[in-house]
Amino acid sequence: MKPVDLDAYLAQRRSEVDRELRRILIAREGRPTALTRAMQYAVLGAGKRIRPILAMAAAEAVGGGRLRRRALRPGCAVEMIHAYSLAHDDLPAMDDDDLRRGKPSLHKKFDEATAILAGDALLTDAFEVLVPRGSQGPDDTARSLRVVTEIAQGAGSTGMVAGQVADMASEGMKRPTRRTVDAIHARKTGALIRASVRAGAIVGGADSGELRALTRFAESFGLAFQIVDDLLDETADVAILGKAAGGDRARGKATYPAILGLEGARAAAEKERKTALRALARFGQRSEPLGAILDRVFARAS
Amino acid sequence: MKPVDLDAYLAQRRSEVDRELRRILIAREGRPTALTRAMQYAVLGAGKRIRPILAMAAAEAVGGGRLRRRALRPGCAVEMIHAYSLAHDDLPAMDDDDLRRGKPSLHKKFDEATAILAGDALLTDAFEVLVPRGSQGPDDTARSLRVVTEIAQGAGSTGMVAGQVADMASEGMKRPTRRTVDAIHARKTGALIRASVRAGAIVGGADSGELRALTRFAESFGLAFQIVDDLLDETADVAILGKAAGGDRARGKATYPAILGLEGARAAAEKERKTALRALARFGQRSEPLGAILDRVFARAS
Repeated sequence: MKPVDLDAYLAQRRSEVDRELRRILIAREGRPTALTRAMQYAVLGAGKRIRPILAMAAAEAVGGGRLRRRALRPGCAVEMIHAYSLAHDDLPAMDDDDLRRGKPSLHKKFDEATAILAGDALLTDAFEVLVPRGSQGPDDTARSLRVVTEIAQGAGSTGMVAGQVADMASEGMKRPTRRTVDAIHARKTGALIRASVRAGAIVGGADSGELRALTRFAESFGLAFQIVDDLLDETADVAILGKAAGGDRARGKATYPAILGLEGARAAAEKERKTALRALARFGQRSEPLGAILDRVFARAS
Repeated sequence: MKPVDLDAYLAQRRSEVDRELRRILIAREGRPTALTRAMQYAVLGAGKRIRPILAMAAAEAVGGGRLRRRALRPGCAVEMIHAYSLAHDDLPAMDDDDLRRGKPSLHKKFDEATAILAGDALLTDAFEVLVPRGSQGPDDTARSLRVVTEIAQGAGSTGMVAGQVADMASEGMKRPTRRTVDAIHARKTGALIRASVRAGAIVGGADSGELRALTRFAESFGLAFQIVDDLLDETADVAILGKAAGGDRARGKATYPAILGLEGARAAAEKERKTALRALARFGQRSEPLGAILDRVFARAS
């Protein structure tokens, strides 16, 4: 079999995800129009859909391509949670960002109350989306219920929200250690990526060994993703401003280049990449999409 | 059998609920201490626990007293969602309330960012609480998954959040109709009460006729509850201020006394009470606690 054409693969998956998200966020009886518009604005449009694509690719690694559809709605639920977290993070009381992906952030486009409520609605509705409609066999029902737990834990008070709280607490910290920064990102961005991959693996029917391997992949992927993101911020700022004062860093937030230097951060990302790749070995060709997505993360940084 | 001693009943149920909520919100590995404190502040302490008590009483109406324990954690999940909604409603960008139940509201006690994040965490963790730990038989697993859907729908973009958006939109509306006010409250307070009762009924093993009857009970109960709340606001203000300018009404919000007058509002509440009582008829003595809770709502208003 020829290697995955990743551009075509990502474009195809992205369009499946976007189609489903549009279907979920369509005007709906009983939902105020203003709320629907705000939810659509927060979710549709830009966005790489990396989390739902990972969920589908994880299901595929376990059970082959035809199982990826089972991970579509759980993946969309995670994307809705990701979008809510960005909307709330941008609020004046939090990061106070007027722009998100080059467009006005949700509270700038609408108002603060709408941004708070649309975020709340996206988070809540995500759990409705997680539950398959129609009846399922007992095994699939049990898997769906496990996925609810995975996503709630990944997004909740010991997952993503914990990371956000820890990140705010680290602002202005004089010398955050590598351990502190790891702990923040493992939860702030890592926990939801981990939950996406695990959700995909679970609906794909992973046994406990497969689930452990994909969890290792997800944890290293998430960390590499964050380090590369920090590196891109840093080098973009150097290119644009001629100095190392990135958005997060300017705010005094803990970034990998800040604690490890550029070379150290690159080496740390490379180490995670290798760990992630090793975790895929047992899945053979079925995990090619996961491997290719990992490579793509690194292609952004080079 | 002698009639339910409602005071003892409510005190006993409330203490079961409070014990479980404290257990859920105890300091936990991986959850920042500041977040745990804010979540505890938002949930523990005051609060009548009416929603979890309704969930347990609904399970009892269907399956008898020993089934009420099955509704305890779903009920606690609903209480966490109720607490998050109060925390977000009190924010400066929303109702801007400095006090909640006579104490500083969450953002006054901590800060706005913490109130937003603690609310997000309570909402997310509620879905973790909904899923029973340990293994269940296939019927119970299917019921747990149905409960996830019920709660997500009751709290989400066509339920509680829709009601909040509609309520904000109604502010300053010149002459809201009865229909508008019903539509707001059916979602803002009614949807989550309905979801509590239905969740209890489902885990109690209700058949479709029983579920329909308890849904009717819940809808009328929720509406009566809101009308009585509006009446109490109104008469308390009359007593304290010597004029009819309650909190919600001062803000120009749609209340029942404002559109129906005091007598009209009392009659509307009484009508809902009768509908709710009729819906309980088929359950006989097992629904006595539900009937007694309904009576208690009215005792507050007289």
